[in-house]
Amino acid sequence: VQAGSPILHGYFRSSCSWRVRIAFALKGVEYDQLPVNLIKDGGQQLAVIQYIDETRPGPRLLPADPKTRAQVRMISDLIASGIQPLQNLYVIQKIGAEKMQWSQHFIDRGFQALEPILKQTAGKYCVGDEISMADICLVPQVYNAERFKVDVGKYPTIKRLNEALLEIEAFQVSHPSRQPDTPDDLRA
Amino acid sequence: VQAGSPILHGYFRSSCSWRVRIAFALKGVEYDQLPVNLIKDGGQQLAVIQYIDETRPGPRLLPADPKTRAQVRMISDLIASGIQPLQNLYVIQKIGAEKMQWSQHFIDRGFQALEPILKQTAGKYCVGDEISMADICLVPQVYNAERFKVDVGKYPTIKRLNEALLEIEAFQVSHPSRQPDTPDDLRA
Repeated sequence: VQAGSPILHGYFRSSCSWRVRIAFALKGVEYDQLPVNLIKDGGQQLAVIQYIDETRPGPRLLPADPKTRAQVRMISDLIASGIQPLQNLYVIQKIGAEKMQWSQHFIDRGFQALEPILKQTAGKYCVGDEISMADICLVPQVYNAERFKVDVGKYPTIKRLNEALLEIEAFQVSHPSRQPDTPDDLRA
Repeated sequence: VQAGSPILHGYFRSSCSWRVRIAFALKGVEYDQLPVNLIKDGGQQLAVIQYIDETRPGPRLLPADPKTRAQVRMISDLIASGIQPLQNLYVIQKIGAEKMQWSQHFIDRGFQALEPILKQTAGKYCVGDEISMADICLVPQVYNAERFKVDVGKYPTIKRLNEALLEIEAFQVSHPSRQPDTPDDLRA
């Protein structure tokens, strides 16, 4: 990694960190990771992703067309503001014993809203056939759903898109099971 | 209101609806309101706001400079993903009896993160001297803080910015106390 590379202060399992890792991988940006065992708030990383998109070459993570852009942002925000903040570490610690039930409830509720939207917007990926910020948000959210034992099979579009995306290298190299701070028992 | 005007499906007290009302007012966009007594998820309205910004004339709600844009988005997302989703109606109904304490906890935690950021970025408004999406997010959040009896005086920058913004007409006409579905006892 070169001098002057961006440093990602992240955590292997944080969906927020993972989103940024995917964006860096898609853009071909080299970066340093500084693992911090601390979960940052919900969607702040979308600001980072859009900044990367606007200042670096590589595939566009937000499409040029305003209507398609709005679809990408709508899906991203549904996940990053509507689902993820309710099951991040800090919140579920506060919930305590019922955290599994709480997380399942809000993920199911979110996926019930997300599935029909994706059914309309999806092609090969979340919005049409190009990878976008929406895909970057989807994959870490499905990973969390699986951790909380949500039956993702109830959401066939979400399931199909997640499987297609996990075939892509940028989503693989950025996966929580392959980070510098991944504990050995979770390493792929 | 003209034929073909956008229709805002909103709720007088929803901070998400209020954000969009402020954006419409700042852009001078006429719109219809269709009140629905239902709270939509967290930050989805940021996609609407950015769409308005990209397709309508009027003041820019996201500045042109990538670094300043990133600051605006970071503040907006901190509020729309990091604070608001934890105290929306649906979540606090699920929390039940402890909802006041829960909401205060997460708003205080969010404002403790927000205050030092705003201290660095603020001029007359949240980021420098131009109104932006960050201001659109701040004012509804402070209104919620007050509803949940958070002592906003502990956050002098937040307090000052909120007071300055509430002097502006776009923030006044869009205020929850002045909407078609505002109940009489909450009407200003």
